[in-house]
Amino acid sequence: LRNLEELLKIVQTLPSKTIAVSAADDYNTLKVVKEIEDIGIAKCLLVGNREKILCINENLKIIDINKKIIDSNSYVDSAKKAVFLVKNGTTDIIMKGNLPTAIFLKAILDRENGLISKGLLSQISVFKKLEGEGLQLLTDCAINIQPTLSEKIEIIKNSVLLAKIIGYKKPKIAILSAVETINSDMPDTIDAAIISKMAERGQIKDAIIDGPLALDNAISLKAALNKGIKSEVAGKADILMVSDIRMGNVLLKSIAFFAKKEIAAVVIGEKLPIIMCSRSDSLRSKILSVALAVYKISKKA
Amino acid sequence: LRNLEELLKIVQTLPSKTIAVSAADDYNTLKVVKEIEDIGIAKCLLVGNREKILCINENLKIIDINKKIIDSNSYVDSAKKAVFLVKNGTTDIIMKGNLPTAIFLKAILDRENGLISKGLLSQISVFKKLEGEGLQLLTDCAINIQPTLSEKIEIIKNSVLLAKIIGYKKPKIAILSAVETINSDMPDTIDAAIISKMAERGQIKDAIIDGPLALDNAISLKAALNKGIKSEVAGKADILMVSDIRMGNVLLKSIAFFAKKEIAAVVIGEKLPIIMCSRSDSLRSKILSVALAVYKISKKA
Repeated sequence: LRNLEELLKIVQTLPSKTIAVSAADDYNTLKVVKEIEDIGIAKCLLVGNREKILCINENLKIIDINKKIIDSNSYVDSAKKAVFLVKNGTTDIIMKGNLPTAIFLKAILDRENGLISKGLLSQISVFKKLEGEGLQLLTDCAINIQPTLSEKIEIIKNSVLLAKIIGYKKPKIAILSAVETINSDMPDTIDAAIISKMAERGQIKDAIIDGPLALDNAISLKAALNKGIKSEVAGKADILMVSDIRMGNVLLKSIAFFAKKEIAAVVIGEKLPIIMCSRSDSLRSKILSVALAVYKISKKA
Repeated sequence: LRNLEELLKIVQTLPSKTIAVSAADDYNTLKVVKEIEDIGIAKCLLVGNREKILCINENLKIIDINKKIIDSNSYVDSAKKAVFLVKNGTTDIIMKGNLPTAIFLKAILDRENGLISKGLLSQISVFKKLEGEGLQLLTDCAINIQPTLSEKIEIIKNSVLLAKIIGYKKPKIAILSAVETINSDMPDTIDAAIISKMAERGQIKDAIIDGPLALDNAISLKAALNKGIKSEVAGKADILMVSDIRMGNVLLKSIAFFAKKEIAAVVIGEKLPIIMCSRSDSLRSKILSVALAVYKISKKA
């Protein structure tokens, strides 16, 4: 995939997939549903309060809305029902509507009735690269607060999975820090060194990993050359990994607000894409995220 | 000050100040010196190896170079001599040339012969605001690795000092985090709550402080309204404070590389501006940083 516009176009031509929307009884969520169906990237089943959905739809006019509603009157119930729809194969993907993230994820991670029993959930944002063609992946800016070393490796594995689907055979991963040198006062630089060496020894497959690298040296070949960094990844990173949510959140929001880039995002757990947009995302960004999840599930099949 | 262009123009009209450049015997450093003198924002004294400076200058042709050189043959000596020039009043400002940061700062922080005996050094970056007129301050992206609560307060005080000189009578400060809610699993949100309350109680003067705030809610009024955040600072922050160097570095580099904004930066300690550019800064950014330091020292007088 060269860019997000191309992603959207491809998804419009793929066999249609179905999305279970948990807690869809909310104007902003239904607006996204309307747009999804209008541009033809998926079909939706709406779990939520029937009356409320019908009332909101008087303005939106989603077609055949009655057939699409699965009545539900609590957050917990709407999360469980949406999970069940994916589990029994009625729908392909689950999407978070207007309910608390914790309740939504609890249903997904439930040992008995959930969708994911092992591994780790992590969020991946995708946007156009600064230099050259292709898409940049950035992870994890939203789910894991302060991942441990082993959690970081799971985050990397999830991102490699998505990168391969997007078209990178062996993605180059930069582990971001404030510096390029290992510093015992900066624990994230220690983790970066360990993970880089693990990848070199073949303990992490299908990726070339290097870190610590500062952002400029990860994404700009000129900056990397200026600093004299010898690395297969520097200046050419396909995946950027941050070491915690503060670093990730501020970077992602800077890319969205200061750099005004279009961003798609998806949560991956056990190969399953989960659509979890944030209220502050633009409609366009939400649609791109849905397209990314549909693309992911289509390529898996 | 409305923008960095205006800063540069004003500084060109101010009475000339003098900069002591430590370890100036390097092509990139002398190129900055040449530019500083050409556009008339300051005069320079060059501490470094005389032969090397004269050799490099055959191409650069800095005027009256012989009168400007203070011969020095080691990093430590060049740092000490530059500090001495400021201390005895020969020059107004000190600038780091091509020497390790640790050696440069050690001379500045020396108890007996240094320039700073108390307080804390912190770096402040300045660039055009996302919304509305005026300059945005961002601190500390370069010096303090993982500041404690009391160090964060010193960082804030340094930034208020610069903000007032730039024209903010009572700057609005956003303490950045990944979230807007206090979360006991996220120590930086706890610090943010404490500092906000301290400001409310008058323990930090001349600033309105609120946090934790995610970046979007700090800089965009629309994002803050969407999230329903009630705050005097949200969407209108003059100063953005990050909680550690990883968060700061990635944000600053994203603003420079993804958003391609012009940035000036200065290090403040005990009211003294110190010019410490990084190799990866553009020439333009280095010149703006010098202008900011000159502006700071001129307004102090």
